[in-house]
Amino acid sequence: MIKNAVYAQSGGVTSVINASAYGVIKKCFSCGEIGKVYVGLNGINGIIGDDLADMDCEEPYEIDLLKTTPASAFGSCRRKLSESHEDEFKKIFEVFSKYNIGYFFYNGGNDSMDTANKIYNYSKKIGFELNVIGIPKTIDNDLYGTDHSPGYGSSAKYLATAILEASLDVKSMSADSTKVFILETMGRHAGWLAASASLARVNANYGPHIVLIPEVPFNREKFITKVDNTVRRTGYCSIVVAEGLNDEKGNLVAHFGATDSFGNKQLGGVGSTISSIISEELKLKVHTAVPDYLQRSGGHLSCYTDVNEAVLVGSMAVHYALQGKNGYMVSINRISDDPYYVTYDLVDLAEVANNTKTIPNDFITEDGMDVTTEFIKYAKPLIEGEYYPPILNGTPRYAKLRLIR
Amino acid sequence: MIKNAVYAQSGGVTSVINASAYGVIKKCFSCGEIGKVYVGLNGINGIIGDDLADMDCEEPYEIDLLKTTPASAFGSCRRKLSESHEDEFKKIFEVFSKYNIGYFFYNGGNDSMDTANKIYNYSKKIGFELNVIGIPKTIDNDLYGTDHSPGYGSSAKYLATAILEASLDVKSMSADSTKVFILETMGRHAGWLAASASLARVNANYGPHIVLIPEVPFNREKFITKVDNTVRRTGYCSIVVAEGLNDEKGNLVAHFGATDSFGNKQLGGVGSTISSIISEELKLKVHTAVPDYLQRSGGHLSCYTDVNEAVLVGSMAVHYALQGKNGYMVSINRISDDPYYVTYDLVDLAEVANNTKTIPNDFITEDGMDVTTEFIKYAKPLIEGEYYPPILNGTPRYAKLRLIR
Repeated sequence: MIKNAVYAQSGGVTSVINASAYGVIKKCFSCGEIGKVYVGLNGINGIIGDDLADMDCEEPYEIDLLKTTPASAFGSCRRKLSESHEDEFKKIFEVFSKYNIGYFFYNGGNDSMDTANKIYNYSKKIGFELNVIGIPKTIDNDLYGTDHSPGYGSSAKYLATAILEASLDVKSMSADSTKVFILETMGRHAGWLAASASLARVNANYGPHIVLIPEVPFNREKFITKVDNTVRRTGYCSIVVAEGLNDEKGNLVAHFGATDSFGNKQLGGVGSTISSIISEELKLKVHTAVPDYLQRSGGHLSCYTDVNEAVLVGSMAVHYALQGKNGYMVSINRISDDPYYVTYDLVDLAEVANNTKTIPNDFITEDGMDVTTEFIKYAKPLIEGEYYPPILNGTPRYAKLRLIR
Repeated sequence: MIKNAVYAQSGGVTSVINASAYGVIKKCFSCGEIGKVYVGLNGINGIIGDDLADMDCEEPYEIDLLKTTPASAFGSCRRKLSESHEDEFKKIFEVFSKYNIGYFFYNGGNDSMDTANKIYNYSKKIGFELNVIGIPKTIDNDLYGTDHSPGYGSSAKYLATAILEASLDVKSMSADSTKVFILETMGRHAGWLAASASLARVNANYGPHIVLIPEVPFNREKFITKVDNTVRRTGYCSIVVAEGLNDEKGNLVAHFGATDSFGNKQLGGVGSTISSIISEELKLKVHTAVPDYLQRSGGHLSCYTDVNEAVLVGSMAVHYALQGKNGYMVSINRISDDPYYVTYDLVDLAEVANNTKTIPNDFITEDGMDVTTEFIKYAKPLIEGEYYPPILNGTPRYAKLRLIR
């Protein structure tokens, strides 16, 4: 009997996670071997709670718009499964049974692959016929077993564009006003996002001058010296810092800084901490930007390469599931940097769930405050190409789904 | 004898101030009545310091790229002139005399129009034959005597796009994680920028739910009630707040909040103050973005209407100067909202210098935390149309000028 498929999204969103949904849905519709495509609303919560939407009820035009619609069109979640809560697994498989599910596609990062792996293991344990395939997604680019993760390229393009433009701004103002600009990026454990801002230099001679990543402990003296030298040499200084920057003792630099009005230490304030340090030591005027969600949902600046790869990891997940592959995540395997070419392979879910990928040493300069040309070679193809969303009345027209239960 | 022209940029930059430079330069080149076009580097500083660049030395392709290049291609300044420093005026007119200047075009906001006006008055005082025309520019949209200011439309488009995308993001996460998103915009005295984010609703049913502007004193209780009601009704809440928000006693709300590691009150932190208030009162997870310079130099998201009008206020400045007009700023006069149509007129520099324009009462809702459809009617045409910069290697290719002295 023909089986149905269920797909869900999990973890922090990206500009292109819905492009992977598009890949899954289109491939399921066209393959002729899968019945209905359901989507779990708000990730695994929707499956546990029997809250599924039937993709047959959506307008084809809106499904097409998923390619350019950022964030999670079906809702995401932060829920983690634990083997000690078997009731959750029981509910999941009751729902799978009720809807005649034979294929489960879970789209997310490390934690989501852990969830997918646990569901895979449980299906084996109870002898439920199910193909589980994970679909990679994270702006952090820290997923193990894949050259890079869909979502990273578009955020990298956003941040490179942002620091390029802000560097022009601070350069403009530096003659008699602001001399330092700081861009605070996401990235708690890995500096891939902060590092990506260095791609701005591909089209400009200036900025960012300093890149601070969690992989290298922050050294206040060396940092201040480099800012001072840069301002003396070029008239201004443009800095990118990852939120997860640590000092030499392993403490978050963000915690050095501001306390809120209730006396609590504020999180995510590494930009303002660094700013305070510069103001105090060098008496320079500093501006700080914290794009926060804007860097991961900036669909107006989606990258063509990234959208295309996101669609393909989705459709290849269906392709491999139909071949009987089970318990894997689709991975991107780079064949060549320039001209850029990749293939789509598989990696064990368990391997992905238990590892993370930080920036290798040969991508980091000797002073620890910049990236090397090796990094540029790696990251440059990932921001290539534009995929502008359709615009209506001056702002993007994103997908409007009906989500019929 | 044919006279030369000098142009300079001043004050905070915008995405389209260089489009006005393009308008001035092209019109000077093509009119046949002006000799050379010089640009003062770093605003009035470059004129006082005899630091001028000759536009004949630039590549035509790079001049064309000024239309899509954000920030100030020639450097800006914060310098104000004072009649009590006559030495500065003497220097300026020595330079005008040396370079045979007959036309002075100054591109900026209120303070810059004050500078232009003082130079106009001084030319009359000493009997120096000079046509002075101001060219409007400010993302804040608070310039008097013009329907709106070039630069506002592109920043408005940036902010509307940002809150549209971030609202999709927080909606995605709201089932079991972040429930409130705050976007902190520029705008110390006027709420035009914060209000513009409401244009996101033209293409979406959600967000921003609350808009806080300096024109309306912040009421903590009413605000918390509205956030709470919004989260109960829709599951999440998306908020825009201007940096210059005041409480009922006229104190900046930003000052309520964080102190830095040296015990100093931090400026520009209204987003984090509002965030702390929500965390404390409602125990909800909040994310806050502070785009800072990104909102005023986001050339990748320039608005076609804005670029076009910026070019035209530049070229009309030259047009009026050649007609012998003197001591005016070019203003934009709206003839019709829909279809949108404007003409380019003149307003006295002195009038512009001594007034600012805040949001009128009929643009603000009764509860003071949103804008009316009257505002939408006013602002909607200003973000219409896209003017994407050329892209090379995944990021914008902006103008590279030689700036030969």
